[in-house]
Amino acid sequence: KMLKRVLYTVLFMGALPSLAEVSQGHISVVLLGATGDLAKKYLWQGLFQLYMDQVSSGHSFTFHGAALTALEPGQRLMFDVLKKLACPPDESPNRCAVLKDQFLKLSQYHQLKTAENYTVLNREIETLLRQEGLKEAGRIFYFSVPPFAYTEIARHINSSCRPPPGAWLRVVLEKPFGHDLESAQQLAAELTSFFREEEMYRVDHYLGKQAVAHILPFRDQNRQFLDPIWNRHHVERVEIVLKETVDAKGRTSFYEQYGVIRDVLQNHLTEALMFLTMELPANVSRAEEVLQCKLQAFQSLRGLEKNSAVLGQYQAYASQVQEELQKAQDYISTTPTFAGVLIHSDNLRWEGVPFLLTSGKALDERVGYVRVLFKNQAYCTQSETLRDAGHSQCKVKQIVFYIGHGALNTPAVLVSRNLFRPVMPEDSWREAAGQSDLHIFGQPLSDYYVYSPVKERDAYSVLISNIYHGRKDFFITTENLLASWGFWTPLLDSISHQPLRLYPGGVENQYLLDFEMVSGEVAFTLAEPVELLNPNRLMPSDYRAIQSKFRQSPLVSAWSEDLISQLASDIEKTASRTVAHSGQFHLALSGGSSPVVLFRRLARHHYAFPWKHTHIWLVDERCVPLTDTESNFFSLHSHLLQSVRVPYFNIHPMPVHLNQRLCVEEDRGTELYAKEIMALVANASFDLVLLGVGTDGHTASLFPQSENGLEGAQTVVLTESPVKPHQRMSLSLPLINKARQVFVLVLGKGKHDITTLLSRVGREPRKWPVSGVSPSSGQLVWYVDYEALLG
Amino acid sequence: KMLKRVLYTVLFMGALPSLAEVSQGHISVVLLGATGDLAKKYLWQGLFQLYMDQVSSGHSFTFHGAALTALEPGQRLMFDVLKKLACPPDESPNRCAVLKDQFLKLSQYHQLKTAENYTVLNREIETLLRQEGLKEAGRIFYFSVPPFAYTEIARHINSSCRPPPGAWLRVVLEKPFGHDLESAQQLAAELTSFFREEEMYRVDHYLGKQAVAHILPFRDQNRQFLDPIWNRHHVERVEIVLKETVDAKGRTSFYEQYGVIRDVLQNHLTEALMFLTMELPANVSRAEEVLQCKLQAFQSLRGLEKNSAVLGQYQAYASQVQEELQKAQDYISTTPTFAGVLIHSDNLRWEGVPFLLTSGKALDERVGYVRVLFKNQAYCTQSETLRDAGHSQCKVKQIVFYIGHGALNTPAVLVSRNLFRPVMPEDSWREAAGQSDLHIFGQPLSDYYVYSPVKERDAYSVLISNIYHGRKDFFITTENLLASWGFWTPLLDSISHQPLRLYPGGVENQYLLDFEMVSGEVAFTLAEPVELLNPNRLMPSDYRAIQSKFRQSPLVSAWSEDLISQLASDIEKTASRTVAHSGQFHLALSGGSSPVVLFRRLARHHYAFPWKHTHIWLVDERCVPLTDTESNFFSLHSHLLQSVRVPYFNIHPMPVHLNQRLCVEEDRGTELYAKEIMALVANASFDLVLLGVGTDGHTASLFPQSENGLEGAQTVVLTESPVKPHQRMSLSLPLINKARQVFVLVLGKGKHDITTLLSRVGREPRKWPVSGVSPSSGQLVWYVDYEALLG
Repeated sequence: KMLKRVLYTVLFMGALPSLAEVSQGHISVVLLGATGDLAKKYLWQGLFQLYMDQVSSGHSFTFHGAALTALEPGQRLMFDVLKKLACPPDESPNRCAVLKDQFLKLSQYHQLKTAENYTVLNREIETLLRQEGLKEAGRIFYFSVPPFAYTEIARHINSSCRPPPGAWLRVVLEKPFGHDLESAQQLAAELTSFFREEEMYRVDHYLGKQAVAHILPFRDQNRQFLDPIWNRHHVERVEIVLKETVDAKGRTSFYEQYGVIRDVLQNHLTEALMFLTMELPANVSRAEEVLQCKLQAFQSLRGLEKNSAVLGQYQAYASQVQEELQKAQDYISTTPTFAGVLIHSDNLRWEGVPFLLTSGKALDERVGYVRVLFKNQAYCTQSETLRDAGHSQCKVKQIVFYIGHGALNTPAVLVSRNLFRPVMPEDSWREAAGQSDLHIFGQPLSDYYVYSPVKERDAYSVLISNIYHGRKDFFITTENLLASWGFWTPLLDSISHQPLRLYPGGVENQYLLDFEMVSGEVAFTLAEPVELLNPNRLMPSDYRAIQSKFRQSPLVSAWSEDLISQLASDIEKTASRTVAHSGQFHLALSGGSSPVVLFRRLARHHYAFPWKHTHIWLVDERCVPLTDTESNFFSLHSHLLQSVRVPYFNIHPMPVHLNQRLCVEEDRGTELYAKEIMALVANASFDLVLLGVGTDGHTASLFPQSENGLEGAQTVVLTESPVKPHQRMSLSLPLINKARQVFVLVLGKGKHDITTLLSRVGREPRKWPVSGVSPSSGQLVWYVDYEALLG
Repeated sequence: KMLKRVLYTVLFMGALPSLAEVSQGHISVVLLGATGDLAKKYLWQGLFQLYMDQVSSGHSFTFHGAALTALEPGQRLMFDVLKKLACPPDESPNRCAVLKDQFLKLSQYHQLKTAENYTVLNREIETLLRQEGLKEAGRIFYFSVPPFAYTEIARHINSSCRPPPGAWLRVVLEKPFGHDLESAQQLAAELTSFFREEEMYRVDHYLGKQAVAHILPFRDQNRQFLDPIWNRHHVERVEIVLKETVDAKGRTSFYEQYGVIRDVLQNHLTEALMFLTMELPANVSRAEEVLQCKLQAFQSLRGLEKNSAVLGQYQAYASQVQEELQKAQDYISTTPTFAGVLIHSDNLRWEGVPFLLTSGKALDERVGYVRVLFKNQAYCTQSETLRDAGHSQCKVKQIVFYIGHGALNTPAVLVSRNLFRPVMPEDSWREAAGQSDLHIFGQPLSDYYVYSPVKERDAYSVLISNIYHGRKDFFITTENLLASWGFWTPLLDSISHQPLRLYPGGVENQYLLDFEMVSGEVAFTLAEPVELLNPNRLMPSDYRAIQSKFRQSPLVSAWSEDLISQLASDIEKTASRTVAHSGQFHLALSGGSSPVVLFRRLARHHYAFPWKHTHIWLVDERCVPLTDTESNFFSLHSHLLQSVRVPYFNIHPMPVHLNQRLCVEEDRGTELYAKEIMALVANASFDLVLLGVGTDGHTASLFPQSENGLEGAQTVVLTESPVKPHQRMSLSLPLINKARQVFVLVLGKGKHDITTLLSRVGREPRKWPVSGVSPSSGQLVWYVDYEALLG
């Protein structure tokens, strides 16, 4: 009868619903780990807040704390926590006191250890409801326990504590959810055997931070202003930052396994990133749509590489680990405590916009923010000094979701006054009075519209309310979780033995952790002092390309990186000269792996390349569809063509795929290509042909002992490769030898033997087809790297 | 004997060359317009400077002032000017006094009016040289006369004053060189009939401004620093600015014909722009190479449109014109006195980088500069407030060529200290002591390396020295001049009746002339107050798209701009939905002019469009090569495909061009396309077909009474158009009707009659092929603008 008594008391207090309305059903909340740290600090308070907010919602509640501790001591521990529950400042103390009293009465402790315990708990809930004559609405099980205990508890709940049909079950899970894609998949698979997807609520408490939770509503409510500017044409960069002053001391047993990327970036910062980059669903309050758009945003992320991140470790970390984990003095931890990561989205909206995610311990200040910096698109004709005070279009424009701490020390949304006055929901955000002397991101606070929450609420109370409301979009779905791990795991793998920059911690870090974006990668701005102390490391750039002769022709040799840059620049020079002279440039490119680096370099560094006047031809092709990843053209397309502006009409893939079949002689693909060459290339003499060499001495797709292509009048031929795919199409040796210029690129130790051999033999194309390359009136240049040349 | 006496005096002064060395030949300088304003203010001083600099060069000189004035008064006027010649501060007063005395003795006045006068001048020069026994090196004729006098003078010089073979002729011309492309071509053609290209030195005195003249040498000497950053990945924007405080008072007779674009932007600012954007020749001191690269830079400029510029006129201008030119009170001048122009280069190096050229009279300050602003690529982990003073990578990075006046009041080169310490030629530029309180472009001067000229020299003395040295790259060649007019003339034509923003002048302009870049165009930031006062002007955006029915199918109607934006967004929605559902989107697009606006909109505004998964098909094609500008595919390529990322493999032009011939039946192009559709499009059912309507009721390339394509099993057909080019390839009506969705776009008054007719008739595809469009299981939507619908 306790419950009914409480209910009547509540009703008696007035301003509360009639009994008819309260009969919407009963909700049982079970908090597992009821006496743990998180529960003490946030969860009970969050549940009490839920009770205060929803006492008149029509639902009735009971709260069940649970732990491994036996009943009596557990009860004592739990009620010690409950008695200390705080009344929020915006609540009338009277009402709060009454409600707190009721909350305590509605709460009880259970020992949950054995299967029997769970059965008993279930029976108690059922009995209570029967006695009170209440319909069951649903049950919430909040797992505030270590992850190793998840499976066991999940099994018990699934087998013994499911509510009857018609009522829902919601289990709330706390991170970590694995430490990489594989472990996350495994954990997810286990949970999936006990719970349906819609029953699981994975908490990332950042989604409950008021400023983060408001990103999507903000974008939705300000569509009219953001629609034209929320894209790569207007956004210069985005920073998502969580800086901490504390270090990992006392928590190294956890931290040493996880590090800053798993602890903060993979979850909190990535979630914020998704809220920024995802397309806005038509209805942001429909969880389904939100989750769908979020998943799509994950799919648009460009894969991370080793150089997408800079990593650091504060100096004291090593000794803290040695001490706390009893490691030897020479134990070296490779766990980063600082990371800056550059992320790109390949979505057309965001293409090229840098998203910088940064977090670290032992930094100069504690602060969290999401900062969207806009490009300055204005020119201010009047000099700044001669202007009235005002909100010039030439001042910085930014939108900041200030998560908390830092100079403002409150969650806030800041919008530069020269952008727009945002629409904000008046019931939850109010315009804050500016502290005019405060500067945020280089600007006085008075340059912004500043909004702070009407009620400051901690993340857990926001999330508990959302669990109650079934708002799945405030939680991490399995798909979302795996997408995030899928995105981060390759980076985590590639950096596991990466050296870390050591930093002293606090304000002494100074410029040590500043980093810069350089052609899509990041690097610390200051050179590592340690690197300077190591003169034995041979830097490739210490060598200049050397020039000499190979097989009577000019030879350019260098370390591969320098060689490629020399080759790329020689190709550009040839192209510019040729276009200046004849208006167009006919370039025939080989497939294989060596040219890929060259293609990338041409795409990223050669802005003056006359692509508009360049025709791209293939030297050889594998008989696979062009869309096959094995296709030479496909590789050329991914690494070069899709990044530069060669007109569609100037691109000439080999016609290996005709009439829905591959390299069938009757389809006359070779003839077709030969005709195309004749029609467009003067004298069928390419301006430049780029070749490679195989370990067997093949070049183009002309293999030793080939029946076709080594001599004769045919210009384009079908050939057989000793390796799969066997069928190939290739330019013939006689056609290649008509070119004005032929460059042969040879890279890597694996080519050392053939290079040595070629340096000794004469012209024997049947044995070594590449030895037959000798342009009749053109020039041949060898580009051979040191590894191929010197072994 | 006068000349020899002067020479001996010079030699007698010592530190001067021996007689053998001085015999390198004689140079006669003829200054036409010797008593005019420019001559008084700059040219004589420049010639005197030349004399001081070159007196020991081995050349001897005589200076011939000339004008229409009779000998005696002319002589008096000229020597009054010469007596006032100043000694430069870095010259010893003694030496200068002696040299000035000599300069006066070497100078004489001539009346040049009749053909006879020129013959006499020539004879005098010849006589003098013969008497002195000097070899002739060359003759300089400096035209400081109004342009209408050019032809006459040029004819006389050519016929009477050419030096003997072996000596050179240099004629120096002052702007204006025409007022548009046509007049410039005409003037150039006239001059070309008298002088060879290498004889003409067209002056743009900006090329003599020390800071402008140093742009190329700076780029050359700092290649190591600039190479990696002088491109679109690092440069955020470039501003080229010349602001004046004076107005046009007293000069309106000139100004009213020219305006700010012709007066400043077409010449001075454009030349500076070229120095920035041109590729750097291997050798910057070879005039030929420099001029070649400069011309190429012109070719890369993207064409200007009306909205590339914002224009203003200071308020007092109208009355000044009325007064000075005796115009009526209601005379309205359309001459801009202020212009801001946004220029893009399509060179890959600069693609997307905004170059802003701005100039105006009656502004707040007098200043000229070229400012290259770099992107901030750094993230500074430490908060700014907690840093040591220093040159953080997060501070603004810029390079400024400060032309003069303004806060610095001297020519200067400024480089942000966080960029690099520039290499500067020590003999001509020295590091300037900073005035630490001065702020330049928002930063204290101490944030820059600042260099100023060792000797400040005015532009004319720099140029006169370059004429003497034959440095043609300091002057405007005919090609260069015509390229510049070719670039500017379309804008000048399109804005000739553009409304101008009136501004009060001086500091009162405040924000009135600030402007912003919006999708590749510029607009004033503040709305024109006048516009707000005119409520009668109907704004297209006042109308929302209305929805209704047309021929029993849904109709969307609006003003064309809104209609296009609605259509584009409907297409994107369909695309996203389809890709989400089936992984790809098959879109068939029509040719013609109406879709061009749509293509542009899709390219510029639809960042989330799933291009990567979209296949592009053609609804119809003209039987012309794909590279023909008449080709539908060519238009689609220029307006859409080259701006978005549709993979090469997903682009499906119609095969109208096979075996080097067009639409020949035996080549089976229609069959080929039909097969391609069958192979890739499920059930040959396009996801979306976009059609238009002709005034005769045709759609796709299906014309009234067509034999092919209106019915039957053939999916792709050859048809005949009543207009050229007659031969077409088209999807058939039955194939179109298999589509899941068909959108028909009808735009413009010209389509009103057919629209009205179509609203009344039934399904009669033989008469009006478009009336046969009725997807069997798909949806048809009409997009008809108000003009087509309502006339």
